[in-house]
Amino acid sequence: MLPYICGVSARRDERETMQADELEQLIGARLIASSRTVSTADSCSGGLIAHRITNVSGSSRYFLGGVVSYSNVAKESLLGVPHELLAAHGAVSGLVARAMAEGARRVFGSDYAIGATGIAGPTGSTPDKPVGLVYIAVASPHGTFVTEHRFDGPREEVKEKTAETALTLLLEHLK
Amino acid sequence: MLPYICGVSARRDERETMQADELEQLIGARLIASSRTVSTADSCSGGLIAHRITNVSGSSRYFLGGVVSYSNVAKESLLGVPHELLAAHGAVSGLVARAMAEGARRVFGSDYAIGATGIAGPTGSTPDKPVGLVYIAVASPHGTFVTEHRFDGPREEVKEKTAETALTLLLEHLK
Repeated sequence: MLPYICGVSARRDERETMQADELEQLIGARLIASSRTVSTADSCSGGLIAHRITNVSGSSRYFLGGVVSYSNVAKESLLGVPHELLAAHGAVSGLVARAMAEGARRVFGSDYAIGATGIAGPTGSTPDKPVGLVYIAVASPHGTFVTEHRFDGPREEVKEKTAETALTLLLEHLK
Repeated sequence: MLPYICGVSARRDERETMQADELEQLIGARLIASSRTVSTADSCSGGLIAHRITNVSGSSRYFLGGVVSYSNVAKESLLGVPHELLAAHGAVSGLVARAMAEGARRVFGSDYAIGATGIAGPTGSTPDKPVGLVYIAVASPHGTFVTEHRFDGPREEVKEKTAETALTLLLEHLK
C-alpha cells in the first residue's frame, strides 16, 4: 500500500516565490542531474502541465509524454483508472488523482508522474464538489502523494494554479 | 486509402485574422452544433493544442482527450503509430503526423482528431529537418489531411504557431 496524503494547502496556492518559467527549468535540471524521467496525466489542467514542462528546451530528454484524460473513458482506457473507482468516488477525487498519476507512471515507464483532476469551472460543480476543487498526485519511486486544493478565480486561472501547484509539488519530490 | 495532402503553407502561418481565443470558441460552437467530438495528439506542441481547446468552458462536451506523445514509445504504444513508419520516415514526417491523428481518433473514438509533430528547437534539428519544420494532420470522417509548415521564432513561438495553425485547420474542416 503506497502512502496517501490528503489535505487542504491554501497557503501553497497563494505563494509566489519564483518566476513563471523557473519551476520547469529547475525540474528539468534536477531530472537531468539524476537521470530520471517524468510523465503527466492532465485532466482539469487540460494539457497545461505538459505544455509548461515542454517549454524547456531539451525536455525530450526527461519528459516521456502525457495523457489529457478529459473523459472517464480516457481515464480508464489509457491510464487504467478502475471503472469502480470512478463510479464510487467520481472523477474529481484524491483516489482518482492517485490512480491517474500511477497509471501515467506505468504507461510511460517514467520515474515520476503527475496526475491532476478537478473542476475548472464555471460549470460542472456539485454541492460537495465546488468549482476550484482540485486533487493533485505525484507518483514517484518512493510512493504516491496526493493533496487537495481549492483554487479561486475564473477557469483559466484555476488551470494555471493547478499547473503551478503540480509543478511545485513535483519539484519538492525531486529534492 | 485516405487522402494525403502535403504542402508548405507559409501564408497561413503568417495570417492573423482573429483573436487568440476566438478559434477555440468557434471550434467548440461548431462541434456542439453538429454533435461531434475531437481529440488531440500533441508532439512538438507539447499539450498546447489540448490546453487551448480546454480553455473553453463546457469543452468536456466535445473534447474527449489527448495524448502528448513526446517519445517514440508513446507514439507507438498509446497511438498505435507503426514502429516501421517511425524508423523509415522519422517522428517528424507527414506520415507520422497522419498516423498520430488517426491513432487519436481511434483511441478516443472521436469524430475529429489533430496530430502535430515537428522540431520546436532550438536543438533537435538535422540537415534535412530544420527547427520550425512541423507537420499537422486533421483526421475527420471525410479522411485525413496533412500539411507541412516552416515556422520561425524561438521554441515557445514555434509551439504557439503550431497550435494556432492546427486549430485553424481543424476549424476549416468543421465548416
